[in-house]
Amino acid sequence: MAPQEESTEEAMGSEQKPISTILIIIAMQTEALPLVTKFQLSKDTDSLFPKGVPWVRYHGIYKDLHVNIIWPGKDILLGVDSVGTISASLVTYASIQALKPDLIINAGTAGGFKAKGACIGDVFLASDVAFHDRRIPIPVFDQYGIGARKTFSTPNLLKELNLKVGKLSTGDSLDMSPHDEASIVANDATIKDMEGAAVAYVADLLSVPSIFVKAVTDIVDGDKPTAEEFLQNLVAVTAALDQAVTQVVDFINGKCLSQL
Amino acid sequence: MAPQEESTEEAMGSEQKPISTILIIIAMQTEALPLVTKFQLSKDTDSLFPKGVPWVRYHGIYKDLHVNIIWPGKDILLGVDSVGTISASLVTYASIQALKPDLIINAGTAGGFKAKGACIGDVFLASDVAFHDRRIPIPVFDQYGIGARKTFSTPNLLKELNLKVGKLSTGDSLDMSPHDEASIVANDATIKDMEGAAVAYVADLLSVPSIFVKAVTDIVDGDKPTAEEFLQNLVAVTAALDQAVTQVVDFINGKCLSQL
Repeated sequence: MAPQEESTEEAMGSEQKPISTILIIIAMQTEALPLVTKFQLSKDTDSLFPKGVPWVRYHGIYKDLHVNIIWPGKDILLGVDSVGTISASLVTYASIQALKPDLIINAGTAGGFKAKGACIGDVFLASDVAFHDRRIPIPVFDQYGIGARKTFSTPNLLKELNLKVGKLSTGDSLDMSPHDEASIVANDATIKDMEGAAVAYVADLLSVPSIFVKAVTDIVDGDKPTAEEFLQNLVAVTAALDQAVTQVVDFINGKCLSQL
Repeated sequence: MAPQEESTEEAMGSEQKPISTILIIIAMQTEALPLVTKFQLSKDTDSLFPKGVPWVRYHGIYKDLHVNIIWPGKDILLGVDSVGTISASLVTYASIQALKPDLIINAGTAGGFKAKGACIGDVFLASDVAFHDRRIPIPVFDQYGIGARKTFSTPNLLKELNLKVGKLSTGDSLDMSPHDEASIVANDATIKDMEGAAVAYVADLLSVPSIFVKAVTDIVDGDKPTAEEFLQNLVAVTAALDQAVTQVVDFINGKCLSQL
């Protein structure tokens, strides 16, 4: 019985101690670098990660927090950001193992649905996450594929900051096929990204609370082609994202998990 | 310069030393257990993996090989096999870190295309892998999404064993949407699974050679619904898969990578 009691105490303790170490997972360099500057973080010279992986850690002290920004880096062969669920899962796993964070913030850009109230430049905090491109039409496997879960609840943070709330749906494609669309509607999603539900899955496996801050670069149910609109708005919307993440981190500073 | 030279020597050495440790990654318990029995492996009592993950390692000595079968286990909440690319990536990463294998074999069932010569019960060795559900229509990102790569070349193994050869396309859905189909055709795939390209991606990142042994449970371009045909043939086809994997392991035993 003793170990059980100890771990319960530990878990309660971590809810009541001020948050000390945070992990901010960001898929694209364009999204990450302004925050690296803002928090005055340094790039790891001696990587926590194994030889061969492109994953990059920026870290430093900001106010009372150990802040780590993890970016999956550029694909070794192709030189583009390692976006998507596989890289996001791997860096989430490896970073939790190495850093034992108190909280994970997955920050990034997303597509938004105007039918659900999203506009370009809006910043959302996701209440729920799910996948829209893992269709396994066998009982129970279907639910595993969808992988719906609630994010860590932060009612005080929501009250304090001017963020919208909505459900996030994740898939590995930037575009949206009719099958994806049907799943996104079934997921009741307001925003769509390429990493969130994967980060949530790994964080849940390893019992680390996680929140999702997503800024809208493109309107999925609008007239413009997604890729074009995404690239056109990426830099401007990243500024809104970075401002929101800074506000979130400022709010977190000095607080316990149970105060968020 | 010294470390560089050392690692080159090490790499050359590993090609010329007999293969010692192999990692067999299998997504479903039904596929894994007959091989666990065949190789007389034991389940890890003290897990290599962190608390909370459902991943299972079976291991033992078979002939001159340290054989490890890694199964991602049952989903903690839902109790179904943790299939798909995210779990496959995570267990591949964590197992390579823990076990430093000389070779990875990803074994499992797959859908086959009769138009490309696949029949129920055929066992394929994949020559190439790629993804069919990561559409990112931005130059270079499109290639990253597809993630096409050649598998480790094993001409002698192919000559010796009665396996078919074909390209493997991977996605997180058991069914096939029209968008998936177009990508599978573009990938020139004969077989379709839910893990292969993810295992290959991680193995490549960490410079471990990997091969893919896939047995056909259902004909994707046939008349029967995939889920029904898959479940109907799973046990029988698993017997063919297990026989093929045993032949592959017997062939590997005592050989160097360069002799495969």
